[in-house]
Amino acid sequence: MHSSNLQMNNKSALKENEGVEQPHITNANAIQRFQQRRKQRISTEEIIKRITNHDKVALSQGITLIESLNQDHHKQAEEIIQGCLPFANNSIRIGITGVPGVGKSTFIESFGQLLTAMGKKVAVLAIDPSSSITKGSILGDKTRMEELVKDPNAYIRPSASGDSLGGVARKTRESIILCEACGFDTILVETVGVGQSETAVQSMVDFFLLLNLAGAGDELQGIKRGIMEMADAVVINKADGENVKRAHQAKLDFNRALHLFPKKPSDWTPKVTTCSALQNTGIQEIWDIIEKYCELTAQNNYFQNRRQEQNQYWMMETINENILMNFYNHQGIKSLITENKKAVQNNELSPFAAAHKILEFYFKE
Amino acid sequence: MHSSNLQMNNKSALKENEGVEQPHITNANAIQRFQQRRKQRISTEEIIKRITNHDKVALSQGITLIESLNQDHHKQAEEIIQGCLPFANNSIRIGITGVPGVGKSTFIESFGQLLTAMGKKVAVLAIDPSSSITKGSILGDKTRMEELVKDPNAYIRPSASGDSLGGVARKTRESIILCEACGFDTILVETVGVGQSETAVQSMVDFFLLLNLAGAGDELQGIKRGIMEMADAVVINKADGENVKRAHQAKLDFNRALHLFPKKPSDWTPKVTTCSALQNTGIQEIWDIIEKYCELTAQNNYFQNRRQEQNQYWMMETINENILMNFYNHQGIKSLITENKKAVQNNELSPFAAAHKILEFYFKE
Repeated sequence: MHSSNLQMNNKSALKENEGVEQPHITNANAIQRFQQRRKQRISTEEIIKRITNHDKVALSQGITLIESLNQDHHKQAEEIIQGCLPFANNSIRIGITGVPGVGKSTFIESFGQLLTAMGKKVAVLAIDPSSSITKGSILGDKTRMEELVKDPNAYIRPSASGDSLGGVARKTRESIILCEACGFDTILVETVGVGQSETAVQSMVDFFLLLNLAGAGDELQGIKRGIMEMADAVVINKADGENVKRAHQAKLDFNRALHLFPKKPSDWTPKVTTCSALQNTGIQEIWDIIEKYCELTAQNNYFQNRRQEQNQYWMMETINENILMNFYNHQGIKSLITENKKAVQNNELSPFAAAHKILEFYFKE
Repeated sequence: MHSSNLQMNNKSALKENEGVEQPHITNANAIQRFQQRRKQRISTEEIIKRITNHDKVALSQGITLIESLNQDHHKQAEEIIQGCLPFANNSIRIGITGVPGVGKSTFIESFGQLLTAMGKKVAVLAIDPSSSITKGSILGDKTRMEELVKDPNAYIRPSASGDSLGGVARKTRESIILCEACGFDTILVETVGVGQSETAVQSMVDFFLLLNLAGAGDELQGIKRGIMEMADAVVINKADGENVKRAHQAKLDFNRALHLFPKKPSDWTPKVTTCSALQNTGIQEIWDIIEKYCELTAQNNYFQNRRQEQNQYWMMETINENILMNFYNHQGIKSLITENKKAVQNNELSPFAAAHKILEFYFKE
C-alpha cells in the first residue's frame, strides 16, 4: 500500500464503486487511464451483472439512467431493465399512502427495520410528482429514516422529480424491476395521498396500505376520494399516549365504513389495525396481515393474475400516453384548443362540435 | 271533412307530427305529394324551430338523428345541437343510479310525477352501454313508468344502444341539450350502477343520487367501487312494511360511512334519506334536498363552474377518444399489440419496451 497517499487524494473519483478493490497507481497519468477504463467498463452488461450480484451502487447507477432525461441514457436504461427482467418479480410490492403529517417516514423506518430483522431485503421507493414544484420532502430527506438508511439490507431511493405523474410513475415502476433483480424481496412504494399518484401506485403494487391518524373524520379531509376503497389495510398510526382510545374508536369507524364497500376482486376483506410507529407497537401485526393477504391471493391466483394485468396496463398506458402526447405537441394544436375552449365556455359551440373542428385540423395535416 | 275516410286510412303516414293540422286530400297522388313535401320540409331549421317551440315529436326526431350511425345524419344532428345550444342549459340535471332490483323505474315514476305536479317539465334519459348486448330493459320497457309516460309534461327516452360507453354517453349528453331547448327543466339520467357508466353520468349531471336497498352490507356488493363517493344523496328505497326498521338502520350506517369521506369540492355534505317509491312516501324530501343543493351551489358558484368544467371535459374526452381510436384502427396495430402482450406476459419484454416497439412501428408509417 505504498501509494495510499495518492489514492486518498483521488478518493472521490476512484471510489465511485464501493466494494471494488482499488488498483495500485503510481502517477497522475495512470489515474487518468484508470478513470477512463472504469468509465468504459461500466457497460450495460456490467451494470446488469452487478445489479444481479446484489450491488447497491450499480442499482443506483441503473436507476439514475432510468431517471435521466438524456435519450441515450434512456436507451441504455431500457437494455438494463431488459437484462434484469428474468431476475425480477420475486417480491411483495407494498404501496403506502397517507396525508402529510400521518407519520409515513417514521412508519417506514419502523416497518422496514422489522422486515430486515426478519431477514428480508427492503427497497423503499416513492412517487411524488409534486416534488418537482414544491421540492417536497417525500423521502428526500433521508435522515428522517436514520436507522433504515444505514441498514445494509435496506435501500432507499427518493422520488424522481421534474416530470409528469406518468413519467414519475414509469420511472418508479421500472426501478422496481431493478430493485428486485438486485435481490430486494420487499418493495415499499410511498406516496403522499393527496393526488392522483395513488391510482398509479395501485397499478404497480400487490398490497395497498393506507396510513391514517387516530381521531374523527376531520383528519381524513385531506385524503383523495377513492383512496379508501383501494386500501387492503387501513392502519391508524400514532396510537400512543392519549391517542390510544381515539385510535380504537377510529378503528371501529373504519371497519364499519369498509364493510359498506363492495367485495374486492381479490376476495380479500380489508383489515383495520392500529399502531405506533414511534413506540414500535402494532408493527408486527401489519406484517401478519400482509402475509395472510399473500397466502389468500396465492391460493386463488389473484396475486399472479394481477401482476399480469398490471403489466398489460402499463404497456397500454405507455402507448396511450405517447399517442396523445404526439397530438398535443403537434404544431398549432394548443392554441386551437384554447380558442375552442373559449367558444365552448361562451356556449357558442357544443363540446363535440369544438372537438371535431380540432380533430379535422389534425387529421388533415 | 268529406275526405275523412281516406285520411283515416293514411293516418300513420300523415300523422307523423302530432298537433299539426291535416290537409284535405282528394287522391292517392296528392297523398304522395304531401308526404314528399312533408319529408323535405323537416329540414334542420324546421326541427330546431319545432324543438324550441317545445314539440316533443321533433325532439324525438332530433335525438334519433343524434343516435343514428349514418354519417349524414350525424352532420345534421350537429347542426341541430348547435341551433338548440342557445336555448339549452336552463335546467337541473340529476343522475340516478342503483343496482338492478333497487326499484329505479318505480322511483322515477313516483319522483317524476311529483315534479310534473309541481309544474316542472321532466325528461328521462338513460345510459346503459350493456343494453346492446343484454338487450337490457333500462327504460326500454316504458310500461314500467305507466303514468309518467302518459304525462304531457314528461318525456321518456330509452337508452341508445349498439355502441361503446363513450358513444352512448356522448349521445345522452347531446340529447340533454335538445331536451333543455325543448323546455324540459328537469333532466333525469338513469344508469344501472354496475359499470363505468357512472363516471360518464357524473360528468354530465349536477346532482348525483344513489338509490339503495334497505338492509345490511350485502345488498351493496353490486355497486361499483367509487360510486358511493360520487353521491350527493343516498336514498334508501323500499322503506315500507317490514323494511322500515332496516331502512332506518341503513340510513344511520350510510351517514356514518359518508362522514368518513373527504369534503366535496361543492362544499355539499351528502344527505341520506329513506323513501318508498311504491307507497309514494319520502319523495318530496328528496326534492327538498336537491333544492337545497341548488341553492348552495348557486351561491358558491360551484353549479355554473362545474358545468363549464364538464363542457371542457367532454371536449377533451372527445378529442382523446378519437385520437386513440385512430391509432387502434391503424392497419396492423391490433395484431402487434396481441403479439407484444404475450411477450410481456412471458416476462420476455418489459411493458415499456413492448410499448415502444409498437409506437415505433406506428410513427414510422
